[in-house]
Amino acid sequence: MCRIKNITLIGAGSVATNLAHIFLKNNFIINQVYSKTLTSAQKVSNLTNSQATNKITEINKNSDLYIISINDDFYKEIIQKLKIPEKSLILHTSGSININIFKNKYKNYGVFYPLQTFTKNKILDFKNIPLCIEANTTENLQKLNKLATIFSENINIINSNQRKTIHLSAVFACNFTNHMIDIAYRINEKNNINPDILIPLITETIKKSTENHPKNNQTGPAKRNDNKIISEHIDILNKIFTSKDLENIPKLYRFVSENIQDLNKD
Amino acid sequence: MCRIKNITLIGAGSVATNLAHIFLKNNFIINQVYSKTLTSAQKVSNLTNSQATNKITEINKNSDLYIISINDDFYKEIIQKLKIPEKSLILHTSGSININIFKNKYKNYGVFYPLQTFTKNKILDFKNIPLCIEANTTENLQKLNKLATIFSENINIINSNQRKTIHLSAVFACNFTNHMIDIAYRINEKNNINPDILIPLITETIKKSTENHPKNNQTGPAKRNDNKIISEHIDILNKIFTSKDLENIPKLYRFVSENIQDLNKD
Repeated sequence: MCRIKNITLIGAGSVATNLAHIFLKNNFIINQVYSKTLTSAQKVSNLTNSQATNKITEINKNSDLYIISINDDFYKEIIQKLKIPEKSLILHTSGSININIFKNKYKNYGVFYPLQTFTKNKILDFKNIPLCIEANTTENLQKLNKLATIFSENINIINSNQRKTIHLSAVFACNFTNHMIDIAYRINEKNNINPDILIPLITETIKKSTENHPKNNQTGPAKRNDNKIISEHIDILNKIFTSKDLENIPKLYRFVSENIQDLNKD
Repeated sequence: MCRIKNITLIGAGSVATNLAHIFLKNNFIINQVYSKTLTSAQKVSNLTNSQATNKITEINKNSDLYIISINDDFYKEIIQKLKIPEKSLILHTSGSININIFKNKYKNYGVFYPLQTFTKNKILDFKNIPLCIEANTTENLQKLNKLATIFSENINIINSNQRKTIHLSAVFACNFTNHMIDIAYRINEKNNINPDILIPLITETIKKSTENHPKNNQTGPAKRNDNKIISEHIDILNKIFTSKDLENIPKLYRFVSENIQDLNKD
């Protein structure tokens, strides 16, 4: 049985907000929500009927579980100041931060990294979200694993180095993919075409990549070495993206095209 | 009423195969299928109970509609040799080729460009696929529009310049997106992690970009100017992608990150 009942959330961003919803739904008690911005803490504490604070020294000592879910830059500062009961478990939710950030500071600690892109005002169903978990002892890993089963059916025991690499892959799969779609939208807007025209194409592209390894789905001018079309496309990009912030898009087109050619040589 | 009944398909690739299925389902008659590779022509002609040929001079003169759906490189050659009845309509399905390729050669012509990524062995439902249509006369455009309504509820009258730009945007939305996901998969494979772990993330990323402009969804180390993580990621990429064909991936990471920073300056 999982003996975690009382929880303190350190952070009030999109991950913390999503976690708060799942905890509430499963009858956990959120004691307190910390954020350096009090109004952010209050948004989540109102939701969870808990106390809000923006002072790390005022974090209560009554919780079984402390979850830190903040911007990577602030972890060191928070951990330096945060005191919790020795028996309590402390977790962070970052893809990049090594578990050892907790070493010599706390007794029971681990990582609970949900591999997903979260939005503050959108509560996701966690059932299929891959959770990457890691803990400092076998006992804590078991405890964390039990907690994770409340959230998801996709639990993965992943060490800090693997997690960092998974996070890197997520930058390509999520952030870079979003950027490519962003540029595609902007091209259509400059062309006075509603960018929604791309939605069925984007949906099918992604569907294919979940059905088959994306290396087998690569199509387009770069893949077929159609240098005439590549040149024409770069000419169009040079014409439509003239402002300083956009002037590298033609170079990006060439760079990505060359990379596709590198990776798709027969 | 649309008086098109008999159709000749010039090309037997994924677009032609998908079109053949829709035509059959709607009781059109496919007379003949041409491909420079006879076995490819035969695959589609068997399906459509029609004749196969790999000789452009043997293309029949009995069809109301001729649809050219081949690699962009071969259009000029095909059009130079292809003779059709004056009253017949001829269409091509390319995103990049100007309608004027048909000028002075045929009397009734147009473009039927489905904005989608096709796979030979996967027949798609066309209902939501955006069709970009263009024709040389109002009468032919009406005829083509009627034909298009059989396929899709998303019909767009688009001129050749707009179509070329839409096609360029599709390179970003489809080909480049797929390439980013391809690299993400390879990173996990090198890390001995099943790349399927990324599927919920990719699915949600795309869902967000269809709900909200992707410029509002940009997240990640580049967006938040986290240069420490960017450097760490480039170090990992340099370690895992050492072979000649993959050595530009770290540079790609930096280049795309810089481009995200350019486009997301406050």
